[in-house]
Amino acid sequence: MSLSIKDDEIDIVIGALRPDLTSFMSEWRPIFSRFHLIIVKDPDLKEELKIPEGFNLDVYKKPDIDCLVGTSTSTIFSGYSCRYFGYLVSRKKYIISVDDDCYPAKDNKGILVDAVAQHITNLTTPATPFFFNTLYDPFTEGADFVRGYPFSLRSGVQCALSCGLWLNLADYDAPTQALKPEERNSRYVDAVLTVPARTLMPISGINIAFNREVIGPALLPSLRLGGEGKFRWETMEDIWSGMCVKVACDHLGLGVKSGMPYVWRNDRGDAIASLRKEWEGVKLMEEVVPFFQSVRLPREATTTEDCVAEVANVVKEQLGSKDPIFARAAKAMVDWVMLWKSVGSSTSSPGA
Amino acid sequence: MSLSIKDDEIDIVIGALRPDLTSFMSEWRPIFSRFHLIIVKDPDLKEELKIPEGFNLDVYKKPDIDCLVGTSTSTIFSGYSCRYFGYLVSRKKYIISVDDDCYPAKDNKGILVDAVAQHITNLTTPATPFFFNTLYDPFTEGADFVRGYPFSLRSGVQCALSCGLWLNLADYDAPTQALKPEERNSRYVDAVLTVPARTLMPISGINIAFNREVIGPALLPSLRLGGEGKFRWETMEDIWSGMCVKVACDHLGLGVKSGMPYVWRNDRGDAIASLRKEWEGVKLMEEVVPFFQSVRLPREATTTEDCVAEVANVVKEQLGSKDPIFARAAKAMVDWVMLWKSVGSSTSSPGA
Repeated sequence: MSLSIKDDEIDIVIGALRPDLTSFMSEWRPIFSRFHLIIVKDPDLKEELKIPEGFNLDVYKKPDIDCLVGTSTSTIFSGYSCRYFGYLVSRKKYIISVDDDCYPAKDNKGILVDAVAQHITNLTTPATPFFFNTLYDPFTEGADFVRGYPFSLRSGVQCALSCGLWLNLADYDAPTQALKPEERNSRYVDAVLTVPARTLMPISGINIAFNREVIGPALLPSLRLGGEGKFRWETMEDIWSGMCVKVACDHLGLGVKSGMPYVWRNDRGDAIASLRKEWEGVKLMEEVVPFFQSVRLPREATTTEDCVAEVANVVKEQLGSKDPIFARAAKAMVDWVMLWKSVGSSTSSPGA
Repeated sequence: MSLSIKDDEIDIVIGALRPDLTSFMSEWRPIFSRFHLIIVKDPDLKEELKIPEGFNLDVYKKPDIDCLVGTSTSTIFSGYSCRYFGYLVSRKKYIISVDDDCYPAKDNKGILVDAVAQHITNLTTPATPFFFNTLYDPFTEGADFVRGYPFSLRSGVQCALSCGLWLNLADYDAPTQALKPEERNSRYVDAVLTVPARTLMPISGINIAFNREVIGPALLPSLRLGGEGKFRWETMEDIWSGMCVKVACDHLGLGVKSGMPYVWRNDRGDAIASLRKEWEGVKLMEEVVPFFQSVRLPREATTTEDCVAEVANVVKEQLGSKDPIFARAAKAMVDWVMLWKSVGSSTSSPGA
């Protein structure tokens, strides 16, 4: 991990959708124990949390959420979205967030992957969104820019978001999972790359890290499916939020990386039972992707808060009439920016 | 390899810059021996070629080149550019081309990589340039599209170009090579990805494959450095040609993939001695990249030949006055399209 980063600049945020975190926390102990953890209990979860001893952590439950944001707002934090409450209350520069059914992965050589170290390396080395380097991340040890890469672009830009990947149960949608129930991802790809500017991708919230000071307000709960459940393939909040982040990063000249670190995702849930719910999300993406591909933000948008507010405006204008879910998402985005500012986590301009 | 492709739909084109191909051909024998080879001898090379027995091949030398294109044109095929003569005379659907200092690589498990099979798989499975799949090539065995990937984009588009990579001596420019003389690439990244639409990259000619019928005329010798020598890091013809190909593919809705297969590049040449020559290429890229990033082709350009001719026009207009090398490149591109048509390799429209 980059020597210039202190452990106390990092919050690890865990959304607890299951009451018993014993095995999760025990598996992550060698990696997480040096850091401060924020655990946010899904407000819909009734049982008491079981958390092993020996961690430096704060736990937030429904009463804490109600207290800070009010009972009418607290519903936005149910299910997988509970983690966003952790993003809101963190005061650290970097946030790392992993789903509670993910365990540390091993690399090609059988060595335990330090996901925190890799995410921080990704965030603290430059990103190169304006020209693709065929040998992937030029800032990895043993790598560099290839012949033909312009020298003027080699200093790169600040990286705001690091999107990790998944071994074992890949992050498929319910139809794919239902179609290939036996398929597991065993391909460990030893690479990190910058996703090029103006290229969109489905950003998963399962295993991500970001610079909260720079891009924090763009990671937000806003698109909630009608029949959203407690399995990943039933959710879209992270995909939608990821589109907002990528558009904001492209506008602000910030980078997004994808690739390592991997986490090991355990199986749970019945994809076939989820199929009925998931199709709503699948159908929405047909509108969402062309929309975000066409969005261009005005020059006046100079902060992440500005970008989110501008995207919300265009969502309302262009998508609002197509499906009420979009109008609700637009309102949630505007509300989020106000909430972010009022809770005092307001970011400064990138690079400031 | 895709079962639908017959061996006789493939030409392997080798530019011979060194007289003794014995070890090169022997190493590749297990992979190349089923296919027809086109060997083009660098017209500047005086010594006789040494080629081992047992291959199905045609060899083209300076008199053959002079005979087909005339002595005034034949100079465009000197040095690394000799391979383009092979592209011109081939009548096959697919061309695979590897530098003569590259040997077959081994994968992470120590198994010999069949570069031909991987290139053909890349070319015969769809590319996905309009949205980035975080788990890389969704058409690889054991992979798929991740949650959030629009179903309407999952059929992808035809792949026209497959760009392979290099182990051991990476494809760096002379300054990088001179700065890190001991650096070798040992990172075998088990992935293929589609380079997104409108994203440019430095395409290397060291290890590539393409659908000649679809994109052939865009692989062309046109940018020649004043002090160009016989080492890869002294050349730019492939980088320039790669920019043309990518712009044409983006315009025509075709895909470009990068990643596997790897080849093993042996060391040769003195990077420090090449430094003086290379800076010309390095400086040119500062003009070349922003230029190609801004190029948009007119709707009327519906074939690869049209695209090359259009790019040539804009090169002449916008770069012609900046450096005489660009005016010469523009003329060479126009000449190449005429040559391609006259030699009878004219392509039909993509997909036809």
